[in-house]
Amino acid sequence: MSYSQFKVRTEQPTQFVNITASCRECVAKSGVLEGVCVVYIPHTTAGVTVNEAADPAVVRDIKMMLNKLVPARGDYTHMEGNSDAHIKASLMGSSVHVPVNSGKLALGTWQGIFFCEFDGPRTRSVSVQVIGK
Amino acid sequence: MSYSQFKVRTEQPTQFVNITASCRECVAKSGVLEGVCVVYIPHTTAGVTVNEAADPAVVRDIKMMLNKLVPARGDYTHMEGNSDAHIKASLMGSSVHVPVNSGKLALGTWQGIFFCEFDGPRTRSVSVQVIGK
Amino acid sequence: MSYSQFKVRTEQPTQFVNITASCRECVAKSGVLEGVCVVYIPHTTAGVTVNEAADPAVVRDIKMMLNKLVPARGDYTHMEGNSDAHIKASLMGSSVHVPVNSGKLALGTWQGIFFCEFDGPRTRSVSVQVIGK
Repeated sequence: MSYSQFKVRTEQPTQFVNITASCRECVAKSGVLEGVCVVYIPHTTAGVTVNEAADPAVVRDIKMMLNKLVPARGDYTHMEGNSDAHIKASLMGSSVHVPVNSGKLALGTWQGIFFCEFDGPRTRSVSVQVIGK
Repeated sequence: MSYSQFKVRTEQPTQFVNITASCRECVAKSGVLEGVCVVYIPHTTAGVTVNEAADPAVVRDIKMMLNKLVPARGDYTHMEGNSDAHIKASLMGSSVHVPVNSGKLALGTWQGIFFCEFDGPRTRSVSVQVIGK
Repeated sequence: MSYSQFKVRTEQPTQFVNITASCRECVAKSGVLEGVCVVYIPHTTAGVTVNEAADPAVVRDIKMMLNKLVPARGDYTHMEGNSDAHIKASLMGSSVHVPVNSGKLALGTWQGIFFCEFDGPRTRSVSVQVIGK
């Protein structure tokens, strides 16, 4: 069991940041050989997802479609003007969980872990709890 | 490791109920100091999400957008007439997972855990498994 | 703690495969009595969800709505032509987590675990990590 946090600095309103290397470091530091790596986002206008890390066009297309499905302006009642960011955060989710096998993140060949900024630019935190032994 | 369940009574067809206090109680009862709190919904027309608990307009806007994206009436084949509720349940997800740090739920400043009713009113169950030690 | 993998063979472009029985087997083999079963998909054009397993019309309606929200053709930039599959994978998510109680998956009465193929037909892998003791 090992809890850690790291920072992510975003530069755009909507931005997917590949945080796989930082998550791998948390797993290495934890010393856990078998278990699960829980990546948790303690924010309400950002989320996290696992998807393709090879071609940057993939996350560009995910962002484009989320902006199309949930437009920035609409019949929103939340006065801060970032309701779309809250909704996208819930659609992506607040955590992802990758198995740890033989001390390594058991990601698929093309997979990476992406911090999903929906109301940037901001300095954000990511919490990582590695469960196992 | 500690498994518990509690009930949620909903009063509306679509309703987000803040269950953070009940989840905190499950963590306190478990005695777990370091780990993860898994909140699981054993229903197929309800989900769970983490989002802003400060301004109720945020969850109102999430509900509004989900109802817009997935209308109650459409080309559905499921005869019970609640296909939209099943779809929204899968979009929000059946579980959320919040790190437990120093015996406390490590939620972000503005975060709360919301039971998402999509086919109410009903009496629902929420399962909580606190993992760790 | 017990890590295993099994294969799923899909036959259609979009197909939800009920993998509950295979997940139950992983839990039985693990010997874990209290914990959580983590079902993880190591692919970027497939996901996993928990929803109704009784009436097949439910997953048919979920597939139909996902195809409507995220059409196969659109303003996508990813050259492989399967951006919609990547987006649907992130909307459903890469993992589900079901509590294990008294050595059994604590699914609700109507719930099943579905592998969500969005770019089939293919032979796919599912990873299962059972956490607990």
